[in-house]
Amino acid sequence: MSTAEALNAQLEREAPAVAAALSPLGRRAFYPPDIPFQAAQARGKTYNATIGQITDGNGRILALPTITAVLDRLNDADRNRALLYSPIEGLAELRERWQRWQTPAAESLPSGALPAASVPIVTCGLAHALALTADVFAGPGRKVFIPAPFWGNYRQIYGIRTGAEVVAVPCFPERRFDPLALARAIASLPSGTPAMALLNIPANPTGYSPTTAERGALVASLFEEAERRPIVVVCDDAYAGLVYEDGIPTTSLFWELAGRSGNLIPLLVTGSTKELVFFGGRVGFLTLPWASDSPVTSALEGKIKGLIRAGIGSPPALSQMVLLQALRKDDIREEIAVVVAVMKERCRVLRAELERAEREHGAFRVLPFNSGVFALVELPEGIDADTLRRHLLEHEDVGLVSIGERYLRVAFCSLEAEAVPELVKRLVRGVGVVGGVGVAQ
Amino acid sequence: MSTAEALNAQLEREAPAVAAALSPLGRRAFYPPDIPFQAAQARGKTYNATIGQITDGNGRILALPTITAVLDRLNDADRNRALLYSPIEGLAELRERWQRWQTPAAESLPSGALPAASVPIVTCGLAHALALTADVFAGPGRKVFIPAPFWGNYRQIYGIRTGAEVVAVPCFPERRFDPLALARAIASLPSGTPAMALLNIPANPTGYSPTTAERGALVASLFEEAERRPIVVVCDDAYAGLVYEDGIPTTSLFWELAGRSGNLIPLLVTGSTKELVFFGGRVGFLTLPWASDSPVTSALEGKIKGLIRAGIGSPPALSQMVLLQALRKDDIREEIAVVVAVMKERCRVLRAELERAEREHGAFRVLPFNSGVFALVELPEGIDADTLRRHLLEHEDVGLVSIGERYLRVAFCSLEAEAVPELVKRLVRGVGVVGGVGVAQ
Repeated sequence: MSTAEALNAQLEREAPAVAAALSPLGRRAFYPPDIPFQAAQARGKTYNATIGQITDGNGRILALPTITAVLDRLNDADRNRALLYSPIEGLAELRERWQRWQTPAAESLPSGALPAASVPIVTCGLAHALALTADVFAGPGRKVFIPAPFWGNYRQIYGIRTGAEVVAVPCFPERRFDPLALARAIASLPSGTPAMALLNIPANPTGYSPTTAERGALVASLFEEAERRPIVVVCDDAYAGLVYEDGIPTTSLFWELAGRSGNLIPLLVTGSTKELVFFGGRVGFLTLPWASDSPVTSALEGKIKGLIRAGIGSPPALSQMVLLQALRKDDIREEIAVVVAVMKERCRVLRAELERAEREHGAFRVLPFNSGVFALVELPEGIDADTLRRHLLEHEDVGLVSIGERYLRVAFCSLEAEAVPELVKRLVRGVGVVGGVGVAQ
Repeated sequence: MSTAEALNAQLEREAPAVAAALSPLGRRAFYPPDIPFQAAQARGKTYNATIGQITDGNGRILALPTITAVLDRLNDADRNRALLYSPIEGLAELRERWQRWQTPAAESLPSGALPAASVPIVTCGLAHALALTADVFAGPGRKVFIPAPFWGNYRQIYGIRTGAEVVAVPCFPERRFDPLALARAIASLPSGTPAMALLNIPANPTGYSPTTAERGALVASLFEEAERRPIVVVCDDAYAGLVYEDGIPTTSLFWELAGRSGNLIPLLVTGSTKELVFFGGRVGFLTLPWASDSPVTSALEGKIKGLIRAGIGSPPALSQMVLLQALRKDDIREEIAVVVAVMKERCRVLRAELERAEREHGAFRVLPFNSGVFALVELPEGIDADTLRRHLLEHEDVGLVSIGERYLRVAFCSLEAEAVPELVKRLVRGVGVVGGVGVAQ
């Protein structure tokens, strides 16, 4: 009973809002009872000839000596697991350790109580976890509301891939975060129509994390709107932990959204890419707002595992095993703190320099930033962002990213603090030249 | 000019059959001129603040010491590249080395001439390369013809994910490979209707590679059928190099299909998973049948890179870097030869034992196998494959995989040669018990 029909029936029974929010692909998807399923049943048998992995007959891979030698810092058992297929849902130890890693203390939540959540499923990087939420819940006819300015790849992940309509919701009118803009935009849909929304905190490209008051308003507005329809809220916590201002909450909004309304379905997307500075590993995680033994989780996990297998086979075991070495270390948070301190200093210097340039030259306006790895400047009208970007490349030896027609993004994660003043100076000069107006030098 | 419309126009001009064969998603897909595109333009700038990677400001990752320590067998430059993002299309050195790795000598081809092919794009394992071919060319209304019996995941990759119709083409009538069955099945489509087909040689689950004569007939029949329509042929060469019988060709059919007809579009899918016994790494490759500087390749690569970014962000750099260590070694083919010799001996013993059991007990019929990592037995009528599989699990301590209602698959890649006689004995006994008929013990 693991066909798509059975899973859909299970969801309709146990979580009607989830069933209503499924995309056409989400409805079709299931985890077929074929090879990985049969292999799981055969685990531990003396004569196990189920899986196409080249081993010695006792579960030890016949690896090439050259590859083994590269990984000799792993012990034998770990190296073997690193070289064999990962389970489709990820290595069990990694899933459990990441669950502990990402779950906040109940006391840190406004409610003081921790909602249920599944053991995270491992994905091939954070983008893959997002793509899976798109597969299951986005699709033709679905609107996906995203606070703007946003990461351009969201348009590809949710719009191009699935055929859903991405709705950009301007959330920084007058350069201040408007926590009610998202729910207001969703409210334009007819009552009863399911919606999807993205929350990326800390945000790319703005580098902004809302204050406690803003979070409260945002959460309340979403619950209010969820009285009228199912809303799937993807919490993209790619930059979790990278918050540099005292008093700004650092726990994921997922924990404030989960378990409180059948109609509000938060999905938590996290990863080691930024949190553990492991960009090349591609280890992401997808967490559902029900316990792992709940029938809703089991039905959705069946669909997600089917989609993982059909999309990438299984996530990389090698990266998972390297990440495990870090998560097993008691003092790994201290290693991370060293990196966060560097980022915090860069953020401080960049903010000071940008705000000074804005004050003294009026060359641009700085959007508020207090976290993440980026800052965003809004250009004066009449200056096209991409024109300025190309000017900076050609004449100022400076590489920035243009976002839409009005914004330039500065990635302070790849910039020394010492280089910031000169970069800002060149940016100001570029604005003056391209704008052709009297920007004070 | 990298919008989907521009890419589609380019394909319509340069390769009308390719344009006609695109899926709806294939038509929508493109590589947007946003962050990775802008970051590529900013490479080498003194003040490069384009990409969200946490570095020291000079391109060196601020990695956690624990993760660095695990990878200390890599030199500094390699380790840095292993921990940073891979380019979306994969590391340049790996792409070039894999191109040399997989390209046969012209003399080994029937034509004696090597057709053009692109530098391979790196994917997250071989299944991801297949999924990309599905994204670009499969979709609602498209039929995908696959020689049966076949790997069950094809149904998920091509059917469930995209909405295409998977057509199973029985290719072993009377337990002999019929090289004309595939083209015959495609011919049932109206003239002019694009088709998609899969060739998995050596095959999962049959372990079969066609003879020279069979290949000749297969290739000729596909070209004949391609006179009536565009045909996209995915060559899934997952088990390349694992051929154990003298006289059986080992070069990919891709090289015999490429460059000879505008209507026949072969796509080559390869990977290090089996070829370099690197299951946990997830490094696959997708190769197109035009040179890298051709406008067709550039348009299709744009679409494929957009889909990779939207699906997984980028492929794992760590796995690519470990694989590179192997490809850089002059004698790596000798390390592989050791594994192939082990597999060849297992194949020989298993074939002898299964054929003897068939002869002496008539318990089942063995499909021909000479390659890959699997063998397939066809059960007598009246015995359901999955019932027998479960009986073997419960009563014989034996794990096999059931394929459809009539086949059991034996993975000799995960079975010692010494264990084969006992496994076959238990299989024969199981058939006798489940069949309830007089199978001679």
